Amino acid sequence: MNCPLCDTPGGTVLWQDDFCRVVLADEPDYPGFLRVILNAHVKEMTGLPAADRQALMRVVFAAEAALREVMAPDKVNLASLGNVVPHLHWHVIPRFADDPHFPNPVWGAKQRDTPHAAPPDLSARLVASLTRKG
Amino acid sequence: MNCPLCDTPGGTVLWQDDFCRVVLADEPDYPGFLRVILNAHVKEMTGLPAADRQALMRVVFAAEAALREVMAPDKVNLASLGNVVPHLHWHVIPRFADDPHFPNPVWGAKQRDTPHAAPPDLSARLVASLTRKG
Repeated sequence: MNCPLCDTPGGTVLWQDDFCRVVLADEPDYPGFLRVILNAHVKEMTGLPAADRQALMRVVFAAEAALREVMAPDKVNLASLGNVVPHLHWHVIPRFADDPHFPNPVWGAKQRDTPHAAPPDLSARLVASLTRKG
Repeated sequence: MNCPLCDTPGGTVLWQDDFCRVVLADEPDYPGFLRVILNAHVKEMTGLPAADRQALMRVVFAAEAALREVMAPDKVNLASLGNVVPHLHWHVIPRFADDPHFPNPVWGAKQRDTPHAAPPDLSARLVASLTRKG
């Protein structure tokens, strides 16, 4: 069916099980931008059985908790859009008052040019936090 | 604390209980744009106990199911952002290939001027669907 989230990991895999994966997105403006990607090709949350919806959200919230622990963002943004790639994936985005779009959504008008500084060893620290929660 | 979602309903209330409410947003470009608003002033999903996260998502998914039943959108977009109003609220947005921003997020660049036509009695049909699921 030629779906990029069926055919590729969709980012650097930080955590995974048989059901879903957490990847670090390749978004230079947003270090720490995570995506939680269902392994199966399903379009809508209500296309999943209730227990699977709950299982996927548990991982989304673990990703949010990991970002809060490691980066202490001013806000976390959560979104499942899928207009272009209709394969369930959640954007889990650490937002900072000095980031490129704040307070706009990352899809809105850009406000400034430089990303918020990321902590050293960001990936390793997120992996450690996700593994403790996983 | 001067929070608009503590001080006002935030839209036309279609369904509510002691915990949260579903409102029809005042978004002329997007008939059927729903928001699920927690009644309490809490900023992040991981600021809620796990059982409350699950209860709130159950209503978000009921709102998605109601939109699919009544409007049959091409996609449903779900988002909890809160950069401007840090009081938990979920955007539940029916998206159509001919809507003003598709396939962009509704916060992105506009593609066309007219909203997707809404069915007659949209509010009443959404109320009926939410009440059956609530």
